[in-house]
Amino acid sequence: MLKLFIGNKNYSSWSMRTGVLIKQADIACEEVVVRFDSFAAGSNFRQIIDAISPTGKVPVLVDTDVVNGLVVWDTLAIAEYLAEKFPEKALWPRDVAARAQARSVCAEMHSGFTGLRSNCPMNIEASLRETGQLVWRDQPAVRADVKRIVRMWSELLRASGGPMLFGDFSIADAYFAPVVMRLKTYFLPVALDVAAYMERVCALPGVQAWVDGALAEKDFLDFEEPYRLSSS
Amino acid sequence: MLKLFIGNKNYSSWSMRTGVLIKQADIACEEVVVRFDSFAAGSNFRQIIDAISPTGKVPVLVDTDVVNGLVVWDTLAIAEYLAEKFPEKALWPRDVAARAQARSVCAEMHSGFTGLRSNCPMNIEASLRETGQLVWRDQPAVRADVKRIVRMWSELLRASGGPMLFGDFSIADAYFAPVVMRLKTYFLPVALDVAAYMERVCALPGVQAWVDGALAEKDFLDFEEPYRLSSS
Repeated sequence: MLKLFIGNKNYSSWSMRTGVLIKQADIACEEVVVRFDSFAAGSNFRQIIDAISPTGKVPVLVDTDVVNGLVVWDTLAIAEYLAEKFPEKALWPRDVAARAQARSVCAEMHSGFTGLRSNCPMNIEASLRETGQLVWRDQPAVRADVKRIVRMWSELLRASGGPMLFGDFSIADAYFAPVVMRLKTYFLPVALDVAAYMERVCALPGVQAWVDGALAEKDFLDFEEPYRLSSS
Repeated sequence: MLKLFIGNKNYSSWSMRTGVLIKQADIACEEVVVRFDSFAAGSNFRQIIDAISPTGKVPVLVDTDVVNGLVVWDTLAIAEYLAEKFPEKALWPRDVAARAQARSVCAEMHSGFTGLRSNCPMNIEASLRETGQLVWRDQPAVRADVKRIVRMWSELLRASGGPMLFGDFSIADAYFAPVVMRLKTYFLPVALDVAAYMERVCALPGVQAWVDGALAEKDFLDFEEPYRLSSS
């Protein structure tokens, strides 16, 4: 059996990647939400995750079908593990060139876009238009990241013909779903074709389920909220 | 034909991962060194790399055997591409659990260890014992990163029996080869079993070839040298 440990759905962008992938691909997997009470050693979150994963971070996938239980502890490694375990689901594009490209953009996301990630933390429930305008005005790193994302998505959609980045849904769309959330929460400016792709991502059942879960949490965590004092 | 574009061998840790992998696995590939004159738009480096890759970064792999030429532009995506293209070379461990673990530690490296990476930039030619002692004393993030690496390597070596992290050489060893270089350049303290692994990594022909190339460059770049005025 597969078991995925994730953080708060509203805030945990890395969790979202794996959660959306598993749901959208209809993979049987138990989801365990471990609330972000704090990331300090000794917190409830760390006690639970430290007992499972050497990095103390989410997401973590546990496969109890493997002898002694297999722990896979990084988002990209989880995606690769699922792609191998369920080849019939074609989580990566079947075409070798498209697959290499999909892995390139996911690896780029995995280590990059720090301007967007640090200035526009994921916060699905929030609507932060004015904050987004200030960030856009003052943070060239955010503008550069969004420019790269818009160009990337436009080129991939043009090459594949859509509706997803590589035609059918793939790991790449799950990987960029949290970016879609950020672009929406902060109302960052994007071209029309990109806005249309974002709407299609939001309409995916796997994304809808995640967003519904995030909205149902109603769990305001001040260390995840640099821009608000409360959610009301 | 495969063509790998890399930066200065002495400084470019991401280039080293792919270069060591290709050499150690004896994969036929042309290596193109593009000197780091500057990372600013319009520099010679950027002009060459921007014409190939959408991120303007190295390493970039080009496979001219694929129709229209395939560009793979991120280290982890390059590793996955080569693992698929040369299955007989077993670049990832053959065992499913070991492979998932290898991918986990590589993905962890891909996005993490920023304390070590920012405070101890790779500089193969240099010997910076005193700098290393200062960094070790003053930078808890470096101590935490080294602690995690030491624990990771010790556990993997104990589980696999060595000599490499997963028994035979794999992508994981190539991925951590630049970390071995940093630990040596800055003389950071490690346990005996880890020091022995580091020596085995340094003795790999693929690593030796890379280090020889780095030492032959004799190209002092001040923007890569926060701790020295010259190499003498």
